[in-house]
Amino acid sequence: MFKQWERAPAQTQIDKQAFIEALKFNADGLIPAIAQQHDSGEVLMMAWMNLASISETLATGQVCYWSRSRQTYWRKGESSGHRQQLVALRADCDGDTLLLLVDQQGPACHTNRRNCFFFEAQADAVTVLNDVDSGLV
Amino acid sequence: MFKQWERAPAQTQIDKQAFIEALKFNADGLIPAIAQQHDSGEVLMMAWMNLASISETLATGQVCYWSRSRQTYWRKGESSGHRQQLVALRADCDGDTLLLLVDQQGPACHTNRRNCFFFEAQADAVTVLNDVDSGLV
Repeated sequence: MFKQWERAPAQTQIDKQAFIEALKFNADGLIPAIAQQHDSGEVLMMAWMNLASISETLATGQVCYWSRSRQTYWRKGESSGHRQQLVALRADCDGDTLLLLVDQQGPACHTNRRNCFFFEAQADAVTVLNDVDSGLV
Repeated sequence: MFKQWERAPAQTQIDKQAFIEALKFNADGLIPAIAQQHDSGEVLMMAWMNLASISETLATGQVCYWSRSRQTYWRKGESSGHRQQLVALRADCDGDTLLLLVDQQGPACHTNRRNCFFFEAQADAVTVLNDVDSGLV
């Protein structure tokens, strides 16, 4: 379906349920989801969703992932309070990646940094960009 | 190693080769890489890299992915001219996702839209956000 949909002009409407079911999940039934702070553009984290967690996220407006390590639903912020409120859910051209525009409460990373991407490769070393807990305000 | 590295304070330096080899590649030897336009913050696409394509990207400053469909190196823009110049390569807290800050020449998407995330799920439908070729200027 994506080969057909990708040619559609702007403002074309596609049935939502058909679209979600046509997404390309991997052998474990999962699809990667990038979370981006909607206003600043900061890329916060990447995690995985399944069909049910996508549906729940769209229904509730609170982002719900699938935890591969715990093999269960991961309602972001349920224990930490660092919730992600959904602003928009987008999918890419071939339907194998999601982009979640969110409003992140507090830090997105489990180290309490604001985002998870704090290792930066440079000419001869990798540098840690910021401190544990630096996302707590 | 990442459980140890994630506690390190800002400005800590880690050996680059050891870091890259400690990244968590999947069963196919691949790791997802998000490409973001370095100045605007626009998320352009997501693709996959292996150890050799990461090393090549760092050495040349031109982004090289691994194409899962073609099972070969994919030097972004080699045929289209729509290259990605690397500005910074980052990894996340647990070393299983990369974030590439890039300078994208022209459109990133094969449909010649500027980015690949042009399907947006809304209340009762999915909307196409922009037209084929809209990223050509």
